[in-house]
Amino acid sequence: MACYRNCFCCHCCCREGETRTPEELAVLGEIPDEEEEILPRKDYESLDYDRCINEPYVEVLEGMDNKKSRQYEVVRWMMVFVIGVTVGLVGLFVDFFVHLFTKIKFTVVGSSIEKCADKGCLSLSLLELLSFNMIFVFIASLLVLIEPVAAGSGIPEIKSYLNGVKIPGIVRLRTFICKAAGVLFSVSGGLFVGKEGPMIHSGAIVGAGLPQLFCSMSATFTLNFFRSGINFNKWGSFQLPGLLNFGEFKCPDGDKNCHLWTAVDLAFFVLMGVVGGLLGALFNCINKCLAKYRIRHVHPKAKFVRVLESLLVSMVTTVVIFAASILLGECRDLYSPPKLNSSLASSEDINSTIRQFFCSNKTYNDMATLFFNPQEAAIHQLFHQDSTFSPVTLSVFFLLYFLLACWTYGVSVPSGLFVPSLLCGAAFGRLVANILKVNMGLDIYSGTFALIGAAAFLGGVVRMTISLTVILIESTNEITYGLPIMITLMVAKWTGDFFNKGIYDIHIQLKGVPLLEWETEVEMDKLTASDIMEPNLTYVYPHTRVQSLVSILRTTVYHAFPVVTENRQNERDFMKGNILISNNIRFKKSSVVTRAGEQRRRCQSMKSYPSSELRNVCDEQSAVEEPTEEGEDMLQQMLERRHVPYPNLYPDQSPSDEWTMEERFRPLTFHGLILRSQLVNLLIRGVCYSENQSSASQPRLSYAEMTEDYPRYPDIHDLDLSLLNPRMIVDVTPYMNTSPYTVSPNTRISQVFNLFRTMGLRHLPVVNAAGEIVGIITRHNLTHEFLVTKLRQHYITI
Amino acid sequence: MACYRNCFCCHCCCREGETRTPEELAVLGEIPDEEEEILPRKDYESLDYDRCINEPYVEVLEGMDNKKSRQYEVVRWMMVFVIGVTVGLVGLFVDFFVHLFTKIKFTVVGSSIEKCADKGCLSLSLLELLSFNMIFVFIASLLVLIEPVAAGSGIPEIKSYLNGVKIPGIVRLRTFICKAAGVLFSVSGGLFVGKEGPMIHSGAIVGAGLPQLFCSMSATFTLNFFRSGINFNKWGSFQLPGLLNFGEFKCPDGDKNCHLWTAVDLAFFVLMGVVGGLLGALFNCINKCLAKYRIRHVHPKAKFVRVLESLLVSMVTTVVIFAASILLGECRDLYSPPKLNSSLASSEDINSTIRQFFCSNKTYNDMATLFFNPQEAAIHQLFHQDSTFSPVTLSVFFLLYFLLACWTYGVSVPSGLFVPSLLCGAAFGRLVANILKVNMGLDIYSGTFALIGAAAFLGGVVRMTISLTVILIESTNEITYGLPIMITLMVAKWTGDFFNKGIYDIHIQLKGVPLLEWETEVEMDKLTASDIMEPNLTYVYPHTRVQSLVSILRTTVYHAFPVVTENRQNERDFMKGNILISNNIRFKKSSVVTRAGEQRRRCQSMKSYPSSELRNVCDEQSAVEEPTEEGEDMLQQMLERRHVPYPNLYPDQSPSDEWTMEERFRPLTFHGLILRSQLVNLLIRGVCYSENQSSASQPRLSYAEMTEDYPRYPDIHDLDLSLLNPRMIVDVTPYMNTSPYTVSPNTRISQVFNLFRTMGLRHLPVVNAAGEIVGIITRHNLTHEFLVTKLRQHYITI
Repeated sequence: MACYRNCFCCHCCCREGETRTPEELAVLGEIPDEEEEILPRKDYESLDYDRCINEPYVEVLEGMDNKKSRQYEVVRWMMVFVIGVTVGLVGLFVDFFVHLFTKIKFTVVGSSIEKCADKGCLSLSLLELLSFNMIFVFIASLLVLIEPVAAGSGIPEIKSYLNGVKIPGIVRLRTFICKAAGVLFSVSGGLFVGKEGPMIHSGAIVGAGLPQLFCSMSATFTLNFFRSGINFNKWGSFQLPGLLNFGEFKCPDGDKNCHLWTAVDLAFFVLMGVVGGLLGALFNCINKCLAKYRIRHVHPKAKFVRVLESLLVSMVTTVVIFAASILLGECRDLYSPPKLNSSLASSEDINSTIRQFFCSNKTYNDMATLFFNPQEAAIHQLFHQDSTFSPVTLSVFFLLYFLLACWTYGVSVPSGLFVPSLLCGAAFGRLVANILKVNMGLDIYSGTFALIGAAAFLGGVVRMTISLTVILIESTNEITYGLPIMITLMVAKWTGDFFNKGIYDIHIQLKGVPLLEWETEVEMDKLTASDIMEPNLTYVYPHTRVQSLVSILRTTVYHAFPVVTENRQNERDFMKGNILISNNIRFKKSSVVTRAGEQRRRCQSMKSYPSSELRNVCDEQSAVEEPTEEGEDMLQQMLERRHVPYPNLYPDQSPSDEWTMEERFRPLTFHGLILRSQLVNLLIRGVCYSENQSSASQPRLSYAEMTEDYPRYPDIHDLDLSLLNPRMIVDVTPYMNTSPYTVSPNTRISQVFNLFRTMGLRHLPVVNAAGEIVGIITRHNLTHEFLVTKLRQHYITI
Repeated sequence: MACYRNCFCCHCCCREGETRTPEELAVLGEIPDEEEEILPRKDYESLDYDRCINEPYVEVLEGMDNKKSRQYEVVRWMMVFVIGVTVGLVGLFVDFFVHLFTKIKFTVVGSSIEKCADKGCLSLSLLELLSFNMIFVFIASLLVLIEPVAAGSGIPEIKSYLNGVKIPGIVRLRTFICKAAGVLFSVSGGLFVGKEGPMIHSGAIVGAGLPQLFCSMSATFTLNFFRSGINFNKWGSFQLPGLLNFGEFKCPDGDKNCHLWTAVDLAFFVLMGVVGGLLGALFNCINKCLAKYRIRHVHPKAKFVRVLESLLVSMVTTVVIFAASILLGECRDLYSPPKLNSSLASSEDINSTIRQFFCSNKTYNDMATLFFNPQEAAIHQLFHQDSTFSPVTLSVFFLLYFLLACWTYGVSVPSGLFVPSLLCGAAFGRLVANILKVNMGLDIYSGTFALIGAAAFLGGVVRMTISLTVILIESTNEITYGLPIMITLMVAKWTGDFFNKGIYDIHIQLKGVPLLEWETEVEMDKLTASDIMEPNLTYVYPHTRVQSLVSILRTTVYHAFPVVTENRQNERDFMKGNILISNNIRFKKSSVVTRAGEQRRRCQSMKSYPSSELRNVCDEQSAVEEPTEEGEDMLQQMLERRHVPYPNLYPDQSPSDEWTMEERFRPLTFHGLILRSQLVNLLIRGVCYSENQSSASQPRLSYAEMTEDYPRYPDIHDLDLSLLNPRMIVDVTPYMNTSPYTVSPNTRISQVFNLFRTMGLRHLPVVNAAGEIVGIITRHNLTHEFLVTKLRQHYITI
């Protein structure tokens, strides 16, 4: 609401999908997302899911046989099982205490209200409720202060992690404990938050693979086993589908004309999907503005300000709940089923959670029933209560809940979004059902509409389709709902995507995480690898002096270094068998077949160099087409320089400052990649040889020694330099990854992207047809923003 | 059974997992799968899922913007929707006619039996049934004669196709029609076949992607929409979950102690999984022997022999059904529910399909109930019939069904395996339930055990886990069955895998399809790309004479040719900027960094060359370490030869025959891949220029012209040579794929495999550090058999 009225806000967040083409933008000189840039951001490291195949690892491989690998497999399955059981127990723990605390709270406050209804001491009841809630929220907030990563739903963090971005502290035990305990208290504290997102973070990462499925199944099993025992004293009977359980949707027995849904309803479902998408987009928009405000004005301040905000939210929520329940509720007649025979059990369940506040017998207070219950109970009410809720109540409930939930998500407590969104959407769906049933006289099943409303709103907020369909079907235990849920979710996603991104993606973006999508836009295929690669490389030679390595490591922040040799004359010694034949045919000059075209591109992409000078060099290169003798002269010059042992001794000096054009464009044959952690490890363990010895005298490290420090590798700055002889030489060839995936410079972006994404890479060297490295592509070169910038440059140069 | 008794058979098929290590095998000189080799096989082509990025395609890309791509997206979704609806209609058609034919058949024959029970004219009834069945099967068999690919379940073919192997005719309209009509008649004909596999073939390929899911959903929607209308006259009410529907599993109302399953039952489920796995392995083993027999002795004969076999199977099945129903059935009491109140509807449904053959009122013939019904009805009986089946009946039924179904799968009619396996397994599960309930007095729910038995047997036969779990849960519409079904399927798969492969994989293997698994075994990582690549290449130059191209295309069968230039002196013209510096450090000789090591490997892997001569050359190479002058001499020689315009004019001559070692090891810089179809296209459209012109005068083809003939490209042998001037030159550089994925020679197999598999490649060039192509990897180099052979060689050389 606030957003639609506020024009500035609309401009800032409601429309992110750019309507202008890149050409127009280039002409206008407009830079989008300018505002984003001023948000304070952290730098994130990438994860490397690819294996580094070097000599120590090959030794391990050679010792591996099928028997050993089968043992590993067994251990892995057992690990998965143990994880599953543990997660199940944690879920049980959280669920049990949430139930307990909530029950105590509502019982105490409820009875106090009943009493005070006569005496007029309602403010006392409010005070009781306030103290309960604020204490719980205070504890949750304190836990998040201990481990700030535990705030929020955790799904953005998990998504980033699986995408390959390292989020510090996300998989630590401390985070786990803070998250699990925090969500317990924040849910018990009556905040409009769910426990599903944090539960996902706390353990089972829902995936498609067998071990993951098995893992989640064993977690569910453990959970249900104990729940059935604790709640019903029937150990090992599995009637409960899980924590999130919508109850049974079914028509009253004997009513042959009742259907859960019909083909006609589908049209309404599509409309509800559209509305859900719009509401979700609005929710995301408001939440984004709030999150930005928090990043700018709350996060830089002292930490207790965040706790105060949590307490403020808790207080407002409590007061709203209390006031709405007491002042705005209507008394509705209880629906008495015509025959109490078979549907006895379910009706009893439903009616056990109604609230009678100030209402006479056989009636109940509909607002209090929704607000003064745990959220799951309220969802059940909306899905299954055969009595009606007044349209006014539903609208007010929806509006209040919407605004409060939106405010709450982002406060520094562990907070899920699933259940609040479902409840909010269910109210909307029930409202639609009310209108259709009462005002238009249609014969529909309200439960289905409430479910579809929940799906539509949830889909509009989080914009997931397949996983949500599965979760919702699993919660309803009714396969026939598959199609309507799927259609609603898709429509909601499409509608919402027209305005902004999903809530999780918004928060990922606000954190500045360089997330990679599933695929690039078709338009990006106008770019090639050489357009987006980083051409300024810091490299190491196969045999490098300790002092060079130390200076490289201390003065750069790169995490991988290409191992190269210069494409020199005496390499021909190694190519004895090679016979040189000319086939006497000229290439087209523009053809990318040649290295010349490659270098021209490198000239173009090297913006840090003064452009006039650059152009001179490039022009000179393409102009001088017959410099065989000149080349010999240059060779002569270079050979004189040859006694300088390590030309790249000080790679910290930016190439643009001191290096000549020749130095910058030396042809460097690519042999492998070596990681920073590996180099530091080699230095720490003294893997080197002295100048007058052969490289074979260098000590060899095993695979175990190479990976001993995983995952916290020592830093180069912790290294005691006095222990190292700077003149010693390190042979990195046994430890480098000799066969990383590479791409050629004219590979299209979609192919680069596919390779990078599916193989989980961190560094992708770009190697030309002559085997020379011309650049490296990392995650940052593939983010949407970077590609858009490059595409704009591409249009300008055309 | 036949297999366990027959020792030879056991050796031939019951144990495929090798117990001997490759070392032992190498010592013994034993070649496994020797027997497989003598089966007649076809050659299969691979599919290429990667895009070929050449100049015409880049032009298309440049013209592409986000608007156009969105239009394509919309068209794609609409296509998916149309496909879904079509498939739904086809399913409806098949289902409707199967129901109709089966109903007519059973009504006619049933009433005839009732009549003849008194008169003693049972042989007449048998004759009626026989004529019905054999006519139907005859029609199904004829349809398969028209299109042989339509035989079988179609799942092996779909699996191969998705894996990247082209199976001729699999996606043609004729196959589709024959399959859909054929399965209709083969199911109506009373064969023990299902219609699910062929249905999958006929349309929706169940996948994880959104469009696929949407597609299958719209198919289900269409199907259910019409079924609800036709069967119940309630258009658009969706109470039916799909074609395969197991009915509702629920405890009798009011029985509070009844649970669908408990934790204790899980132990039984695991045991049933083991037994199901064993039975499935036995089934697969017998079926494999039968399939082999068919390939050797039936397929080479005239086609009508296959029809005769189908008729024979049909006859035997019919007689067995008839005889067993009449002679072996026991009369069992009908279970009358204590209160007919609420479970009225379902009990009625179940009891409507019992058969009373010769039994008095209130009793029924249990064998006839199972045999003399459509298979779906029999499954429902086993799942939901509260009355008991006699253990003897269940055992006999299981045995007969097992053997007949095993014989039937592979006969040349469209035949699925799902429903027969489910029925067979359900009988087994019901038997277990009977024993536990009656003999051991346990309080269990028989329906669950029948379901688990069905899952166990089906899992033992087809060895799928995730997709089967989803299908079975969807059919039962009971999410709580997830865990037991999952566990049973996994146990069954593990048990079965101990003995042999799944039935679909067995049939794929028997067809000789080079299927690639999901991942390689850990042990295979001892091999590198250079160990398995094909080193003998036929290549083309960027500018090649028409006569060379024609001779290459006519004399080889390769589908892609690397475009190379020789790594000659004057290429340095293009590398003007390159300064040659020696950093004065020697490499370890064994290091794979250098090209020398590469060539040594190529020497080793080149088996076609006489080994003594080879060793000489290789030794010579590694011995002569300073032949700079000699190299110059060789260069001189080569330069003299230079007037021979195209050294590879006759690439059909095997290198080992005429080529010298130098010719074989010429350093060939790799620039791109060009496909056979592209070359033929260039020749047909006269894309070439004459010697005295520049290559710019060559006509240019657009993307549309390049792909006009898709998917049936003209053959080189259809080309009219008289229209071509053999001295003209073709510039292939604009049309080649300049940026295929490549790997370095020392890439490990698992990485090669990942790249090949996830990118859907057909040709993967192996390029060394100097940018020279040293080999190509295709699907055949990555099959399990090939890798095992290479691994054995690897152990020998070590």
